[in-house]
Amino acid sequence: MPTPEQMQAAVHAYVDAFAREDSEGVVALFAEDATVEDPVGTPAKVGHDAIREFYTMSIGTGAKLELQGPIRVGGDFAAFAFQVRLKMGEADATVDVIDVFRFDDAGKVRSMQAFFGPGNFTGM
Amino acid sequence: MPTPEQMQAAVHAYVDAFAREDSEGVVALFAEDATVEDPVGTPAKVGHDAIREFYTMSIGTGAKLELQGPIRVGGDFAAFAFQVRLKMGEADATVDVIDVFRFDDAGKVRSMQAFFGPGNFTGM
Repeated sequence: MPTPEQMQAAVHAYVDAFAREDSEGVVALFAEDATVEDPVGTPAKVGHDAIREFYTMSIGTGAKLELQGPIRVGGDFAAFAFQVRLKMGEADATVDVIDVFRFDDAGKVRSMQAFFGPGNFTGM
Repeated sequence: MPTPEQMQAAVHAYVDAFAREDSEGVVALFAEDATVEDPVGTPAKVGHDAIREFYTMSIGTGAKLELQGPIRVGGDFAAFAFQVRLKMGEADATVDVIDVFRFDDAGKVRSMQAFFGPGNFTGM
Protein backbone atom coordinates (compact mmCIF):
# COMPACT_ATOMS: atom_id res chain seq x y z
CA MET A 1 0.00 0.00 0.00
CA PRO A 2 1.42 3.42 -0.89
CA THR A 3 1.70 5.96 1.92
CA PRO A 4 -0.53 9.04 2.12
CA GLU A 5 2.52 11.12 1.21
CA GLN A 6 3.14 9.04 -1.94
CA MET A 7 -0.49 9.39 -3.04
CA GLN A 8 -0.48 13.14 -2.40
CA ALA A 9 2.77 13.43 -4.36
CA ALA A 10 1.14 11.59 -7.28
CA VAL A 11 -1.70 14.12 -7.37
CA HIS A 12 0.73 17.03 -7.35
CA ALA A 13 2.77 15.31 -10.08
CA TYR A 14 -0.41 15.00 -12.14
CA VAL A 15 -1.22 18.71 -11.80
CA ASP A 16 2.40 19.66 -12.50
CA ALA A 17 2.56 17.48 -15.62
CA PHE A 18 -0.47 19.33 -17.02
CA ALA A 19 1.30 22.62 -16.27
CA ARG A 20 4.37 21.41 -18.19
CA GLU A 21 2.22 19.89 -20.99
CA ASP A 22 3.99 16.61 -20.29
CA SER A 23 1.63 13.79 -21.26
CA GLU A 24 4.29 11.13 -20.68
CA GLY A 25 4.65 12.46 -17.14
CA VAL A 26 0.95 11.80 -16.64
CA VAL A 27 1.03 8.33 -18.23
CA ALA A 28 3.93 7.32 -15.95
CA LEU A 29 1.68 7.78 -12.91
CA PHE A 30 -0.64 5.01 -14.10
CA ALA A 31 -0.32 1.23 -13.84
CA GLU A 32 0.09 -0.53 -17.21
CA ASP A 33 -3.49 -1.89 -17.06
CA ALA A 34 -5.08 1.14 -15.40
CA THR A 35 -8.57 2.43 -16.22
CA VAL A 36 -9.50 6.08 -16.79
CA GLU A 37 -13.22 6.95 -16.67
CA ASP A 38 -13.40 10.64 -17.59
CA PRO A 39 -16.12 11.72 -17.19
CA VAL A 40 -17.80 9.00 -15.12
CA GLY A 41 -20.46 7.34 -17.25
CA THR A 42 -18.34 7.16 -20.41
CA PRO A 43 -16.44 4.03 -21.48
CA ALA A 44 -13.17 3.63 -19.59
CA LYS A 45 -9.85 4.07 -21.35
CA VAL A 46 -7.85 0.93 -20.46
CA GLY A 47 -4.06 0.62 -20.52
CA HIS A 48 -1.17 2.93 -21.26
CA ASP A 49 -1.81 3.32 -24.99
CA ALA A 50 -5.42 4.45 -24.56
CA ILE A 51 -4.46 6.59 -21.56
CA ARG A 52 -1.62 8.24 -23.49
CA GLU A 53 -3.96 9.05 -26.38
CA PHE A 54 -6.50 10.55 -24.00
CA TYR A 55 -4.04 12.74 -22.10
CA THR A 56 -2.17 13.85 -25.22
CA MET A 57 -5.50 15.17 -26.45
CA SER A 58 -6.48 16.67 -23.06
CA ILE A 59 -3.15 18.40 -22.50
CA GLY A 60 -3.13 19.50 -26.13
CA THR A 61 -6.13 21.73 -25.40
CA GLY A 62 -3.90 23.79 -23.10
CA ALA A 63 -5.94 22.79 -20.05
CA LYS A 64 -4.34 23.67 -16.71
CA LEU A 65 -5.49 22.29 -13.35
CA GLU A 66 -5.84 24.23 -10.10
CA LEU A 67 -6.44 22.27 -6.91
CA GLN A 68 -9.31 23.48 -4.74
CA GLY A 69 -8.96 22.61 -1.08
CA PRO A 70 -7.02 19.78 0.50
CA ILE A 71 -6.47 16.41 -1.16
CA ARG A 72 -8.48 13.74 0.65
CA VAL A 73 -6.14 10.78 1.17
CA GLY A 74 -6.63 7.47 2.97
CA GLY A 75 -6.51 3.72 2.37
CA ASP A 76 -5.65 3.27 -1.31
CA PHE A 77 -7.22 6.51 -2.57
CA ALA A 78 -6.73 10.18 -3.23
CA ALA A 79 -9.77 12.34 -4.01
CA PHE A 80 -9.43 15.98 -4.97
CA ALA A 81 -11.49 18.92 -6.20
CA PHE A 82 -9.99 21.12 -8.87
CA GLN A 83 -10.80 23.55 -11.62
CA VAL A 84 -9.74 23.00 -15.21
CA ARG A 85 -8.88 26.25 -16.97
CA LEU A 86 -9.04 26.45 -20.73
CA LYS A 87 -8.23 29.27 -23.10
CA MET A 88 -11.08 29.55 -25.60
CA GLY A 89 -9.94 32.24 -28.04
CA GLU A 90 -10.12 35.51 -26.13
CA ALA A 91 -12.09 34.07 -23.25
CA ASP A 92 -11.37 31.67 -20.42
CA ALA A 93 -13.54 28.66 -19.79
CA THR A 94 -13.52 26.55 -16.64
CA VAL A 95 -14.71 23.13 -15.60
CA ASP A 96 -15.14 22.15 -11.94
CA VAL A 97 -14.13 18.52 -11.46
CA ILE A 98 -13.59 16.01 -8.66
CA ASP A 99 -11.16 13.18 -9.41
CA VAL A 100 -10.79 9.92 -7.50
CA PHE A 101 -7.54 7.99 -7.90
CA ARG A 102 -7.23 4.43 -6.54
CA PHE A 103 -3.68 3.11 -6.20
CA ASP A 104 -2.05 -0.29 -6.45
CA ASP A 105 0.59 -1.59 -4.07
CA ALA A 106 3.36 -0.16 -6.25
CA GLY A 107 1.94 3.33 -5.82
CA LYS A 108 0.65 3.56 -9.39
CA VAL A 109 -2.87 4.76 -10.19
CA ARG A 110 -4.94 1.66 -11.05
CA SER A 111 -8.20 3.55 -11.63
CA MET A 112 -9.14 7.17 -12.16
CA GLN A 113 -12.66 8.55 -12.18
CA ALA A 114 -13.48 12.16 -13.09
CA PHE A 115 -16.79 13.51 -11.79
CA PHE A 116 -18.26 16.46 -13.67
CA GLY A 117 -21.22 17.24 -15.89
CA PRO A 118 -22.62 19.89 -18.21
CA GLY A 119 -23.55 22.15 -15.29
CA ASN A 120 -19.92 22.32 -14.18
CA PHE A 121 -18.77 24.31 -17.22
CA THR A 122 -18.56 28.08 -17.25
CA GLY A 123 -17.63 30.41 -20.10
CA MET A 124 -18.44 27.95 -22.90
CA MET B 1 -32.34 8.56 -14.38
CA PRO B 2 -32.75 11.49 -11.98
CA THR B 3 -32.09 14.98 -13.36
CA PRO B 4 -29.04 17.01 -12.35
CA GLU B 5 -31.40 19.26 -10.39
CA GLN B 6 -32.81 16.30 -8.44
CA MET B 7 -29.33 15.05 -7.56
CA GLN B 8 -28.21 18.51 -6.47
CA ALA B 9 -31.35 18.86 -4.36
CA ALA B 10 -30.55 15.54 -2.68
CA VAL B 11 -27.09 16.80 -1.69
CA HIS B 12 -28.56 19.99 -0.25
CA ALA B 13 -31.21 17.94 1.59
CA TYR B 14 -28.39 15.83 3.07
CA VAL B 15 -26.51 18.89 4.33
CA ASP B 16 -29.73 20.46 5.64
CA ALA B 17 -30.75 17.28 7.47
CA PHE B 18 -27.41 17.34 9.32
CA ALA B 19 -28.08 20.99 10.22
CA ARG B 20 -31.50 20.01 11.65
CA GLU B 21 -30.07 16.88 13.33
CA ASP B 22 -32.67 14.91 11.38
CA SER B 23 -31.32 11.40 10.85
CA GLU B 24 -34.62 10.18 9.34
CA GLY B 25 -34.31 12.96 6.78
CA VAL B 26 -30.94 11.53 5.79
CA VAL B 27 -32.15 7.92 5.69
CA ALA B 28 -35.05 8.91 3.42
CA LEU B 29 -32.56 9.98 0.73
CA PHE B 30 -31.24 6.40 0.40
CA ALA B 31 -32.64 3.41 -1.44
CA GLU B 32 -33.79 0.57 0.83
CA ASP B 33 -30.77 -1.57 -0.13
CA ALA B 34 -28.24 1.26 -0.43
CA THR B 35 -24.61 0.98 0.62
CA VAL B 36 -22.67 3.55 2.67
CA GLU B 37 -18.86 3.25 2.68
CA ASP B 38 -17.69 5.93 5.12
CA PRO B 39 -14.76 6.22 5.05
CA VAL B 40 -13.81 4.33 1.88
CA GLY B 41 -11.89 1.19 2.87
CA THR B 42 -14.18 0.29 5.77
CA PRO B 43 -17.00 -2.28 5.50
CA ALA B 44 -20.09 -0.83 3.85
CA LYS B 45 -23.24 -0.26 5.85
CA VAL B 46 -26.00 -1.94 3.82
CA GLY B 47 -29.71 -1.13 4.01
CA HIS B 48 -31.84 1.36 5.89
CA ASP B 49 -31.38 -0.13 9.36
CA ALA B 50 -27.59 -0.03 9.20
CA ILE B 51 -27.65 3.37 7.52
CA ARG B 52 -30.02 4.76 10.18
CA GLU B 53 -27.75 3.49 12.96
CA PHE B 54 -24.73 5.06 11.31
CA TYR B 55 -26.29 8.48 10.74
CA THR B 56 -27.97 8.61 14.15
CA MET B 57 -24.48 8.21 15.60
CA SER B 58 -22.88 10.68 13.17
CA ILE B 59 -25.51 13.37 13.65
CA GLY B 60 -25.44 12.74 17.41
CA THR B 61 -21.87 14.05 17.51
CA GLY B 62 -23.24 17.46 16.50
CA ALA B 63 -21.39 17.35 13.17
CA LYS B 64 -22.42 20.03 10.67
CA LEU B 65 -21.50 20.00 6.98
CA GLU B 66 -20.37 22.97 4.91
CA LEU B 67 -20.15 22.54 1.15
CA GLN B 68 -16.91 23.66 -0.46
CA GLY B 69 -17.24 24.63 -4.10
CA PRO B 70 -19.81 23.49 -6.62
CA ILE B 71 -21.46 20.08 -6.57
CA ARG B 72 -20.19 18.01 -9.52
CA VAL B 73 -23.26 16.41 -11.12
CA GLY B 74 -23.64 14.25 -14.20
CA GLY B 75 -24.88 10.84 -15.31
CA ASP B 76 -26.09 9.09 -12.15
CA PHE B 77 -23.74 10.83 -9.70
CA ALA B 78 -23.18 13.80 -7.47
CA ALA B 79 -19.70 14.39 -6.04
CA PHE B 80 -19.02 17.17 -3.57
CA ALA B 81 -16.29 18.51 -1.33
CA PHE B 82 -17.24 19.64 2.15
CA GLN B 83 -15.93 20.27 5.63
CA VAL B 84 -17.37 18.53 8.68
CA ARG B 85 -17.36 20.78 11.74
CA LEU B 86 -17.40 19.23 15.18
CA LYS B 87 -17.52 20.82 18.61
CA MET B 88 -14.88 19.12 20.76
CA GLY B 89 -15.34 20.66 24.22
CA GLU B 90 -14.05 24.21 23.94
CA ALA B 91 -12.42 23.66 20.58
CA ASP B 92 -13.63 23.11 17.06
CA ALA B 93 -12.40 20.20 15.00
CA THR B 94 -12.83 19.81 11.27
CA VAL B 95 -12.63 17.00 8.73
CA ASP B 96 -12.25 17.66 5.00
CA VAL B 97 -14.25 15.08 3.03
CA ILE B 98 -15.30 14.34 -0.54
CA ASP B 99 -18.51 12.32 -0.93
CA VAL B 100 -19.67 10.50 -4.05
CA PHE B 101 -23.38 9.65 -4.30
CA ARG B 102 -24.62 7.31 -7.07
CA PHE B 103 -28.37 7.40 -7.71
CA ASP B 104 -30.95 4.86 -8.86
CA ASP B 105 -33.68 5.57 -11.39
CA ALA B 106 -36.05 6.64 -8.62
CA GLY B 107 -33.63 9.38 -7.56
CA LYS B 108 -32.58 7.64 -4.34
CA VAL B 109 -28.92 7.26 -3.35
CA ARG B 110 -27.93 3.66 -4.08
CA SER B 111 -24.29 4.05 -2.97
CA MET B 112 -22.39 6.61 -0.97
CA GLN B 113 -18.62 6.75 -0.60
CA ALA B 114 -16.85 9.18 1.75
CA PHE B 115 -13.21 9.92 0.94
CA PHE B 116 -11.07 11.17 3.82
CA GLY B 117 -8.19 9.97 5.95
CA PRO B 118 -6.24 10.80 9.10
CA GLY B 119 -4.47 13.71 7.40
CA ASN B 120 -7.81 15.42 6.74
CA PHE B 121 -8.53 16.09 10.42
CA THR B 122 -7.62 19.34 12.14
CA GLY B 123 -8.04 20.33 15.77
CA MET B 124 -8.14 16.78 17.17
